[in-house]
Amino acid sequence: MKKYIQEDEWKIIEEGFKPEQHKNSESLFSLGNGHMGQRANFEELYSGPSLQGHYIAGIYYPDKTRVGWWKNGYPEYFAKVLNAPSWIGIHLEIDQQSIDIYSLKVLDFKRVLDMQKGILLREFTAELKNGEIIKVVAKRFLSICRREIGAIQYEITPINFSADIKADLFIDAGISNQDANYDEKFWNPVSESAIGNLTLITAQTKKTDFTVTTAQWTSININHSPSQLSPENHIETQKVHSIYKFSLNKGETASLYKIVSVSTSRDYSKELLEEQAKHNVTEANDLGFEALEKEHIKAWAAKWEESDIVIEGDLSAQQGIRFNIFQLIQTYSGHDARLNIGPKGFTGEKYGGSTYWDTEAYCLPFYLSTAEENIPRNLLLYRYNQLDKAIENARKLGFTNGAALFPMVTMTGEECHNEWEITFEEIHRNGAIAYAIFNYSRHTGDESYIIDYGLEVLIAISRFWAQRINYSRQRQKYVMLGVTGPNEYENNVNNNWYTNYIAVWTLRYTLEGISKIQEAYPEKAKQLFNKINLDPNQETVLWKEIIGNMHLPEDNDLQIFLQQDGYLDKEQILASELAPFERPINQNWSWDRILRSCFIKQADVLQGIYFFEDSFSEKEIRRNFDFYEPRTVHESSLSPCIHVVLATKLGKLDKAYELYLRTSRLDLDDYNHEVHEGCHITSMAGTWLSVVEGFGGMRVKNDSLHFDPLLPPAWKSLHFKVRFRGRFIKVSIQQQKLVITPLDGRTFKYFVDEKELITE
Amino acid sequence: MKKYIQEDEWKIIEEGFKPEQHKNSESLFSLGNGHMGQRANFEELYSGPSLQGHYIAGIYYPDKTRVGWWKNGYPEYFAKVLNAPSWIGIHLEIDQQSIDIYSLKVLDFKRVLDMQKGILLREFTAELKNGEIIKVVAKRFLSICRREIGAIQYEITPINFSADIKADLFIDAGISNQDANYDEKFWNPVSESAIGNLTLITAQTKKTDFTVTTAQWTSININHSPSQLSPENHIETQKVHSIYKFSLNKGETASLYKIVSVSTSRDYSKELLEEQAKHNVTEANDLGFEALEKEHIKAWAAKWEESDIVIEGDLSAQQGIRFNIFQLIQTYSGHDARLNIGPKGFTGEKYGGSTYWDTEAYCLPFYLSTAEENIPRNLLLYRYNQLDKAIENARKLGFTNGAALFPMVTMTGEECHNEWEITFEEIHRNGAIAYAIFNYSRHTGDESYIIDYGLEVLIAISRFWAQRINYSRQRQKYVMLGVTGPNEYENNVNNNWYTNYIAVWTLRYTLEGISKIQEAYPEKAKQLFNKINLDPNQETVLWKEIIGNMHLPEDNDLQIFLQQDGYLDKEQILASELAPFERPINQNWSWDRILRSCFIKQADVLQGIYFFEDSFSEKEIRRNFDFYEPRTVHESSLSPCIHVVLATKLGKLDKAYELYLRTSRLDLDDYNHEVHEGCHITSMAGTWLSVVEGFGGMRVKNDSLHFDPLLPPAWKSLHFKVRFRGRFIKVSIQQQKLVITPLDGRTFKYFVDEKELITE
Repeated sequence: MKKYIQEDEWKIIEEGFKPEQHKNSESLFSLGNGHMGQRANFEELYSGPSLQGHYIAGIYYPDKTRVGWWKNGYPEYFAKVLNAPSWIGIHLEIDQQSIDIYSLKVLDFKRVLDMQKGILLREFTAELKNGEIIKVVAKRFLSICRREIGAIQYEITPINFSADIKADLFIDAGISNQDANYDEKFWNPVSESAIGNLTLITAQTKKTDFTVTTAQWTSININHSPSQLSPENHIETQKVHSIYKFSLNKGETASLYKIVSVSTSRDYSKELLEEQAKHNVTEANDLGFEALEKEHIKAWAAKWEESDIVIEGDLSAQQGIRFNIFQLIQTYSGHDARLNIGPKGFTGEKYGGSTYWDTEAYCLPFYLSTAEENIPRNLLLYRYNQLDKAIENARKLGFTNGAALFPMVTMTGEECHNEWEITFEEIHRNGAIAYAIFNYSRHTGDESYIIDYGLEVLIAISRFWAQRINYSRQRQKYVMLGVTGPNEYENNVNNNWYTNYIAVWTLRYTLEGISKIQEAYPEKAKQLFNKINLDPNQETVLWKEIIGNMHLPEDNDLQIFLQQDGYLDKEQILASELAPFERPINQNWSWDRILRSCFIKQADVLQGIYFFEDSFSEKEIRRNFDFYEPRTVHESSLSPCIHVVLATKLGKLDKAYELYLRTSRLDLDDYNHEVHEGCHITSMAGTWLSVVEGFGGMRVKNDSLHFDPLLPPAWKSLHFKVRFRGRFIKVSIQQQKLVITPLDGRTFKYFVDEKELITE
Repeated sequence: MKKYIQEDEWKIIEEGFKPEQHKNSESLFSLGNGHMGQRANFEELYSGPSLQGHYIAGIYYPDKTRVGWWKNGYPEYFAKVLNAPSWIGIHLEIDQQSIDIYSLKVLDFKRVLDMQKGILLREFTAELKNGEIIKVVAKRFLSICRREIGAIQYEITPINFSADIKADLFIDAGISNQDANYDEKFWNPVSESAIGNLTLITAQTKKTDFTVTTAQWTSININHSPSQLSPENHIETQKVHSIYKFSLNKGETASLYKIVSVSTSRDYSKELLEEQAKHNVTEANDLGFEALEKEHIKAWAAKWEESDIVIEGDLSAQQGIRFNIFQLIQTYSGHDARLNIGPKGFTGEKYGGSTYWDTEAYCLPFYLSTAEENIPRNLLLYRYNQLDKAIENARKLGFTNGAALFPMVTMTGEECHNEWEITFEEIHRNGAIAYAIFNYSRHTGDESYIIDYGLEVLIAISRFWAQRINYSRQRQKYVMLGVTGPNEYENNVNNNWYTNYIAVWTLRYTLEGISKIQEAYPEKAKQLFNKINLDPNQETVLWKEIIGNMHLPEDNDLQIFLQQDGYLDKEQILASELAPFERPINQNWSWDRILRSCFIKQADVLQGIYFFEDSFSEKEIRRNFDFYEPRTVHESSLSPCIHVVLATKLGKLDKAYELYLRTSRLDLDDYNHEVHEGCHITSMAGTWLSVVEGFGGMRVKNDSLHFDPLLPPAWKSLHFKVRFRGRFIKVSIQQQKLVITPLDGRTFKYFVDEKELITE
């Protein structure tokens, strides 16, 4: 754990320059607007440790798979998030000295991420070798009103001398990825040009042929007044420069401006890209930096109006939850159903791909509650649109008849992962994708999605389960062999309770869906069944047999569900018995020791209980929680949140708060020593779950919102807003009081402790 | 299957030149002498597909591990068999045309491996572009009398023209490996020199710093008489040439000679290497090619006298078994306990490393029966000498107190393998290493090995088992979780019967050893126990508990041992039900489908029954064989042999012969389409087992040889010789008759069908 971020309600603040935490800060102070993202790399030259990262949503490279030992069925390629042409560069020469604060004496340094406004600020004062002191104030944002636009204001003031300054404002497409299996560069040059204040580069990704035009309009103010100074432009292959040369007297300030557009062939035809980019920057520059900033701040205010959570009495928690919400909004705007939420969002390259089951299992509820319906719906459509590839993926593994296995990691629907125990066996992801359809319908009450899209996905997943499950003559039960559950500290186990349970649940939910469509929309039913060649009377016979006779491992003595067959054969030790030097075990134990141990990486049985809470008695939940949580080492960032929700339900407030602390500031306090690689974006949605479903005790049941809040003692109050079935309501919780305020003024029915209440 | 080798009792013969089978032939016609080996690469330039391979025993490179996803505990390096400086090169220019038979019209081509003599012969007639026809006859061998010496006689005759010939006899250290994780070259130059007829290169491996001097003495005869022609020598970095320029009239013959020495810093200090190499080639050249060849042929005759198997009535089987014996002798001479038997011997790079459990489980019996005791004993000492590293290996995985886990793949004792399910879990290899100690003692009657070396290994392995096994409170039994058995089509299973059985057996055998040493050599016992910090009274308490209460999975209905917990939950299909296009499943099925299936790669339960045959009733053996063999796809080259032995025991002659055909000519007929990568050397020992223990029905029991032969109908007779406890006896089997002939003339007691017999 590394704590250097100052606590503040709305800001992330770093004071004093420490190069060893710079890579962490580059992640934490990242900006994004759904279309693109930018790590908090410096504009000027920096020779210290840094991970350069500008990422454009949907722009990827299929890097050739690298494994030690090939297994049949492995995908040939792994989609990598690509570092895209750099748009931020402003290199300074002052009196012929390059400015690189890694090699200068830094007198003052401050970095502020203003989450309320969506703006990154940085200022520093540095002493050059000859005693000259300069001050720089840099401000930037990625507009959430104009998604292709980024803007930088970069102010330089010589403090104790008069300076000759050369400022090189450039775009650089000669960039590389840190994560490259074969050390390739991934961008080919297309064209570079410069006319007056407008310079641009077009570059193209290898293999995928994505074309990206990055255009900048540069200008300069001297002492806050526009200057007529024109840049000298230089063009190299993959790099264009607009160079300003000027002199400042002591105390004078030059403000450099970069208005940048990043447009891609995902949105425009290649022929029109450069025109579009020119249009974008010209229009934005005409508006000017301040106006752009103003509309951006206003748009962020509207976002916060919908999605903010207020925690009174716990500044640290307040900052933590806002940071998480801020990053979630930056990462996914829901405007494009081809996009999804990568584990690192726009904050790093790690994990490549863009989509894991994290989206359905952890992220969806945040967008259901805080955004308009079409946004979470686009997350579902993403999978619907990739159904054919999921069927193809299953076919490669030997499944037939339209069975679908959605990929573990993907960018476009094709599997990218290549560890057999995950790729082929962590198939519960299919269950989460089915569950998300249910979750969406439950929250929104929108039945049209399942009829028009969801059922087709559900049937394909059910077909997969029906083939993946086999009948054990010995047990006289249906079984599912060779799987990896959510707890990835077990591999290739038989009858993982969670996977078996969600498979049976899927079959049942699909059957319901089939009945519903047959009754309500017989014509649509016919069309669908024709399209996918389904005879429901025939094919569902086996499904029903499986539903009625599936092996769901339990232990009668302990009265718990068993994580998998044989789990109790393991030596039973509790996580509390581990020595501190052994933790995290994934860094200190050999892999086989982890596998053999009873230790659980993240909620597994409890993930199922969380999803299907209403199907279990409180006693069942308690027994399983009391058994499994103490064996859980929470070494996935997705672990604590589920436990917080269940612990608050069980009234275990201390446990809930202890685990909440692990999730709420995971990145800000760098619990896992890995924030330099990027932030844990999807786990941030888990933190939101912890607050709203955990301490807020919110549930959707029988078409209504239910609440059963329980606040940590330190919290004076908790406030959040929820979108629910066209309504927008405010929830205010104090230690002994819950106030629900529908923002449209109409009365609203809800439940507290199973009792129906109605707002006045 | 590719059948192009002509059948012959003693020779491997290829007629006609087909470039597409050249890589196969390069493997099949390989030469070796225990110190080094050479694929049947051509001496002259060859631009067609070829795998260049000259390998020196014990010379390896630790290539940096390459995996997709790192797991804690993986080794950093993988020892690669290294392609060593090439010694065979003779490039020809005839009338200024380079001779490369890939681009010439080949009129005649013949390649013969004379196994009786250990000599590779090749002759071809080729037409040059201008219609000129040349004939080449090349003969070479690697001396088994002088292990550092290789010799080539290369004869050229212009058939229809007078020729100006330039012959470049070179040594080339600028070679590369096909198998290189990061495409590196592995040799650094040290020095090159040339004086008169002697040229040499010294080169050094990267990282491992093995230094190798390759020296050649070249000479030339014209029309079979020594010529005074001197070579022009050229020296480049990593390449030295001795160039002969001469003219031949039509029909005249030039014979080029290369006498080569390959000496390494494994055997000599680096400073003396070049002197030694010079001495070697000078001495050998003084003797001359013919004398070297003569002593080599004589030595091979002596080898065959000891190890030959004669099968009358089945030429194909006769050739097959001799090929296997020939390769085994070429691969391992037993002169150096630092060496072992790689899966490909000296015939290819594949599998890197040099030692798998193949050595103990499959190869040892061959050397026990056909070589002097010190040779198999050296195979055991190899492991003894690596015990410290095996302890270190276990320590890295979290085991303590001197527990040893021998590596899955190794060159020097360090683990090289990097698939977690094998590296960490295929721990039954430890059992085979313990079993080999027993097998050696049983065959030789030599108790000194176990007292002086073996017991220390056994205790370290027992310590590993005692820690690797845990007590299941639920079962009230000891269990072993998370292992991979010999059947690698299952991974990470619980309670693999074979592994559990051999672990318990090891504990029991170790306890016997401890008792024996305490009784017979109390002083040695004390010393040993002190050295390894063992209090036998204390530490063996747990061992005895495990022995008494280990879970060995069985099925009561079927009355069989269960391959692992839950095996019968799988869908039970027989290999005979697979469609031809599905086989081999390891090429046609996805990995997860293989894992989930009941199909068995190689003997697993049956491997245990094979090792401990006397502990099971014939009925038990039959029930298990009848259950498991039909589920076995024999997709390891090590599978058929074990089944042949058990099938003959059970009187299933048809099944035994069917499986024998799969093992006996595996490489000659290229069953698995992979002989181009090298021959399956260790499985060749399995073929020997099939004949001697299978059809010959030989066993060692209670200090005696037992026989229970059963010959395939086609076989008129089977003859082999066995070394047994200082005796050397000949076994002759006809369909209804067994004749045992002790070659020392003294009477010999043996058993047939449990009845004691004695030779006259």
